[in-house]
Amino acid sequence: MTDLSPAATPQTPAPSALAMVPFVSVGDMMRLVHREGIDRVLRDLAAHIEADFLRWPEFDKTPRVASHSEGGVIELMPAADARLYGFKYVNGHPGNTRSGHQTVTAFGVLSDVATGYPLLLSEMTLLTALRTAATSALAARALMPAGAATMAMIGNGAQCEFQALAFRALCGIDRLRLYDTDPRATAKAMANLRRQGFEVTACDAAEAAVEGAQVITTCTADKRNATILTDNMVGAGVHVNAIGGDCPGKTELHRDILGRATIFVEYPPQTRVEGEIQQLDPDHPVTELWQVLAGQAPGRRDAREITLFDSVGFAIEDFSALRYLLGRVRAGAAHARLDLLADPDDPRDLFGMLERARPAG
Amino acid sequence: MTDLSPAATPQTPAPSALAMVPFVSVGDMMRLVHREGIDRVLRDLAAHIEADFLRWPEFDKTPRVASHSEGGVIELMPAADARLYGFKYVNGHPGNTRSGHQTVTAFGVLSDVATGYPLLLSEMTLLTALRTAATSALAARALMPAGAATMAMIGNGAQCEFQALAFRALCGIDRLRLYDTDPRATAKAMANLRRQGFEVTACDAAEAAVEGAQVITTCTADKRNATILTDNMVGAGVHVNAIGGDCPGKTELHRDILGRATIFVEYPPQTRVEGEIQQLDPDHPVTELWQVLAGQAPGRRDAREITLFDSVGFAIEDFSALRYLLGRVRAGAAHARLDLLADPDDPRDLFGMLERARPAG
Repeated sequence: MTDLSPAATPQTPAPSALAMVPFVSVGDMMRLVHREGIDRVLRDLAAHIEADFLRWPEFDKTPRVASHSEGGVIELMPAADARLYGFKYVNGHPGNTRSGHQTVTAFGVLSDVATGYPLLLSEMTLLTALRTAATSALAARALMPAGAATMAMIGNGAQCEFQALAFRALCGIDRLRLYDTDPRATAKAMANLRRQGFEVTACDAAEAAVEGAQVITTCTADKRNATILTDNMVGAGVHVNAIGGDCPGKTELHRDILGRATIFVEYPPQTRVEGEIQQLDPDHPVTELWQVLAGQAPGRRDAREITLFDSVGFAIEDFSALRYLLGRVRAGAAHARLDLLADPDDPRDLFGMLERARPAG
Repeated sequence: MTDLSPAATPQTPAPSALAMVPFVSVGDMMRLVHREGIDRVLRDLAAHIEADFLRWPEFDKTPRVASHSEGGVIELMPAADARLYGFKYVNGHPGNTRSGHQTVTAFGVLSDVATGYPLLLSEMTLLTALRTAATSALAARALMPAGAATMAMIGNGAQCEFQALAFRALCGIDRLRLYDTDPRATAKAMANLRRQGFEVTACDAAEAAVEGAQVITTCTADKRNATILTDNMVGAGVHVNAIGGDCPGKTELHRDILGRATIFVEYPPQTRVEGEIQQLDPDHPVTELWQVLAGQAPGRRDAREITLFDSVGFAIEDFSALRYLLGRVRAGAAHARLDLLADPDDPRDLFGMLERARPAG
């Protein structure tokens, strides 16, 4: 644990414990993943997400607050229950890779509802990749056809390997068929995934990738209405895990697929605006995933049904991920402590705290 | 500058510059205030706020996103122009002082709209106190009667001294009349403010405090509809700076005062819900402060007019404060650097970055 606090001097008392907020850096997060093992992290995240989805009505829910610009979007995603409040800051800038930046970066905070004080600040670029994959696999475990062993992955960018690992850890899928419009992305993912023991086939077209796959994952990053899957590519019995279409004007599936599929979503008020179903009438029937997990709605009904998880990412998943992480931090996972909160001896004497910190002379 | 980054080892390369985000701690903020001098900080903040208010139509504005609970509220306050995006996290928990916590704590982030990458993370408990005071004084400079020299301050908590210093730095007010329901709060503020060279009178009732004052500042923290000022306490020609009523169900002024006053607000869609004017019809006329500053609407029209700045705090003020702070950080103000953003060599190879950080053995 690193204490990033000003040294105590006669002039400047050290900040009290109340002032300090645990901070999990990218380096700390990588250490956590390696110490725990990524499979265990993905399973634990899925368990936390499932536990929170099962108590869905307890949450204060709101669609994320998005600020769109020409190059992308910056979003704030809050969620709270009676004890904890969490939010994530996340950007999505498809052109970022051209300047060596990440398309998506994120960080987040978990707070104590009773006092409003932050309990944890964390990087969430890695944590979002992990929770997105855990959520997809959690949904697929409930929706994919029995005996599924092969997954097509269209879009082989930063999210690809995390999805594959989660589908193996939670769903037993270990055969992958990869396609990306950029062959270098496929080569990157194939090398990473073969080292992880997957049976991987690189395909030169999306049509080839979906051959023989029981699960199709689409995770492309273009910010536009694209057609990654055409209608003829999705056969009976397939589960489609569509995670790339996640903001207004950004979709991946041809509209006709949606008409043939049973559609499962996280939070309809957000998905209607951001997901694949932005292409449909606002009253097109969808099923909320939490209801399937809670046994309140059917999941897959038969072997020929096409199931679609139209995932846009919802704030409760981030809440669950931060809740998991706070548990790990309290159990000793690597973190620093930041002097983020002013904490005067007398809470009403903020100015006195400032004056007492005045340098001598 | 402290680098809070994992040490580079053959197994774990050090994070690149893109991964690191400047962090201004509470200690750093106090060092900045003492180095610059608080009067200069307040004037510079007011100048940044004024500059941003003058280009008001350029901003992407939204009411803050509030999560209310029994004990208080947690809010996210975003604002953006074409180049920069800022948001503040702030809580308000009136019962916090009972457990030695601050009623209000805050932190915030300023980001680059083009990439979505954060440019700065900062404590904002102190910075909010400073920007709130700067905004109040900026409004009063445009609205208070000519020759005002005495201010009544009802509510002598954490915000009190900052208000007084801003009104002296920007408006020339150096005589103060203090009242708080808790005499210890008044004693605290009086001691602090006398050390700063003010002429201070402690009063044993709000009625006494307003005697002879040309400006009345109300900054109490109760989360309820209170009547800090009754109608007969506000005479002709007074400027009222009402900053404590700032969420639904929390007001400070009797409704009749509002009927007699010319009302100035920050952002009507937010103030109608949160400010004193939540007591009025939603179409009661108000003037936006930015229009007064820009010369597009009249401010005070005559010596007998009662002017009221119904301030709830708006996200653009935080944006301006963060913009000011980024300038100071870039000019060398104390800060640390946090390994907040994942930055793989190949932006699409987030998993590869994780794998390369695997400990040896």
